Amino acid sequence: MEPVRIDDPLDERVAAYVDIRERDLVGRQGRFVAEGKVVVDVLTATRRFGVESVLVLENRLAGMQHVLARLPADVPVYVVGAAVMDRIAGFHMHRGILAIGLRGELASPDQLLGTVGQNALVAVLVGISNHDNVGSIFRNAAAFGADAVLLDKASCDPLYRKAIRVSVGAALKVPFAVADDAAIIADLLEKKGFTQFALSPRGETDIRDVQPRGPVALYLGTEGEGLPEHLMSRLHTARITMAPGFDSLNVAAASAIALHAFTRNAG
Amino acid sequence: MEPVRIDDPLDERVAAYVDIRERDLVGRQGRFVAEGKVVVDVLTATRRFGVESVLVLENRLAGMQHVLARLPADVPVYVVGAAVMDRIAGFHMHRGILAIGLRGELASPDQLLGTVGQNALVAVLVGISNHDNVGSIFRNAAAFGADAVLLDKASCDPLYRKAIRVSVGAALKVPFAVADDAAIIADLLEKKGFTQFALSPRGETDIRDVQPRGPVALYLGTEGEGLPEHLMSRLHTARITMAPGFDSLNVAAASAIALHAFTRNAG
Repeated sequence: MEPVRIDDPLDERVAAYVDIRERDLVGRQGRFVAEGKVVVDVLTATRRFGVESVLVLENRLAGMQHVLARLPADVPVYVVGAAVMDRIAGFHMHRGILAIGLRGELASPDQLLGTVGQNALVAVLVGISNHDNVGSIFRNAAAFGADAVLLDKASCDPLYRKAIRVSVGAALKVPFAVADDAAIIADLLEKKGFTQFALSPRGETDIRDVQPRGPVALYLGTEGEGLPEHLMSRLHTARITMAPGFDSLNVAAASAIALHAFTRNAG
Repeated sequence: MEPVRIDDPLDERVAAYVDIRERDLVGRQGRFVAEGKVVVDVLTATRRFGVESVLVLENRLAGMQHVLARLPADVPVYVVGAAVMDRIAGFHMHRGILAIGLRGELASPDQLLGTVGQNALVAVLVGISNHDNVGSIFRNAAAFGADAVLLDKASCDPLYRKAIRVSVGAALKVPFAVADDAAIIADLLEKKGFTQFALSPRGETDIRDVQPRGPVALYLGTEGEGLPEHLMSRLHTARITMAPGFDSLNVAAASAIALHAFTRNAG
C-alpha cells in the first residue's frame, strides 16, 4: 500500500496512536502498540499477530522499507513529520516507527501446551507485575529457546507497550498464555508430564546440578514475596547460590541464569 | 544528632537536595545522592563513603531509626513534610529518605587491585553508558561476590543516582575504580597475573566450560558494538550459547550468567 501522508494530529486515521503513554493504563480493545524499528521488525517478521496500521516519521521512511515490505497489502502506512508525530504520541517520540498490533484470540494455556514438543522448556511467571521484568524475562526466554511462557493474572500483560520494548520484540515471538492463577498452571503442567522447578533462594538443588529430562517448567516469582508456599510445597525447588549476606538477584537476572542452565542447546 | 525540622524548601541546609533529577546531569562536586531506605541502609552500613546529611519524610522517621542510628553523631538529619519534600526534590518523592554521600578520594585501579586476594574476581566495564545496566551489573557483582569493578571513562558513573538505586546499593558496596581506557586496565590486570576473559557472542569458549584458576577478570561491553577488537585480540574470549537466530542478551543478564559461572562460592 502506498504510504498515506497525515498532517493533522487529530486525523481519525491515527486516533489509535493518540497519547500512547496515557493509554497504556486503560484497555485497548484488542490492540497493542509496538514501537521502534527492532520491535516492528519482529512484529512483521513473525506474523504471530496481525497489524492494523503503521505510523512512520517521514525522514525514517527510507530506512524502514524492508520492514514495511513485509506488511500485507491492505495494512495502511501513515507518514508524518516530527512535530505531528510528537503531537499525536503526546511526548517527544525519538523512535521513528509505531505500529498498532492486533491481539487476536490468545491461546489458552492448555491449547498452547498442546503445541510444544517432548523436551519443551516453559517459563511460568507468578505475580510479576513489573513491565521491565516481564519484558526482560521474555528476552531471556527467546535467547535460550524457551517454547512458551505461562503467566498468572497478577503478572503484567506481555503486550504492554513497555514490556514489548524491553523484550526487544521477544514478547511478540515467544508464545504465551495467561491463566487465572498459578495453581491451575501447575495442575496442567503436572497432567502433561512436566518436571516443575520453582526458583527460590530457599531452593533445595543448586541450579547447576539440575539435570532435567523431558519437558520442564521454571517458575519465577517476585523478588520480595517470592513464590507462594502452596506452589513451593508441590514443586521441585532450585536455587542460585549467591555470596553470603546478599539478599536476592533481580528476577530478570535470575531468569537468565536459570534458563541458561536449563537450555537444551548443546554448545 | 537530634533531627532538625525544615519547613522552607529554600532553606540553605537542604540546598544539596534541590531538583535532584535535573542535577544528575551536572557535576556534584564530590557528592552523590542515595535514595530510598534500602540504599541509605547500605550507605550507612558499609561506611565506604561518608555521609554529609540525610533528608527524611516526617511520617517515615520512626521506620528509619535503625538506619539513622548508624550515622556518625555529627551528621545532620533533616525532617520535612511531604509537600516540602516534593518542592525540594522537584518531583513527587515517594521514597521517604534521601542522603547526600561524599565521594571522597576514589582509589586508582592499581591501588584497588592491591587490596584484592589471590582468587579475586573482577568485572571490567567497557563503554557501558546506560545507568540501568551499570546498576544491574553492580547488583550481580555483589550477588556473586566479585571483589572489584573496573570501568573505563566511557562507562556510566556508578555513583549516578539511578545507577545506585538500580544496584540496590551494591554500587556503594563493591569497590570500583575508573581508568582512562580499557587498554590501561588490561595492561594492569596482565601485570597482576589475572586470567582475562572477554564476554562476546563471538567468544571461543562456552562460559560453562571456563574453569578459571587464580585471579580472573570478566570484560563486558555494550550490546550493539561489543568489545573493541584491540581488546578481543589480546584476551581469552568466552560466549554464552544462545538459541539460533537470537541476536544478543542484555549486558546485565549476560553479566549475571557469566559472574555466576565464574563464582567461587561452592554450593
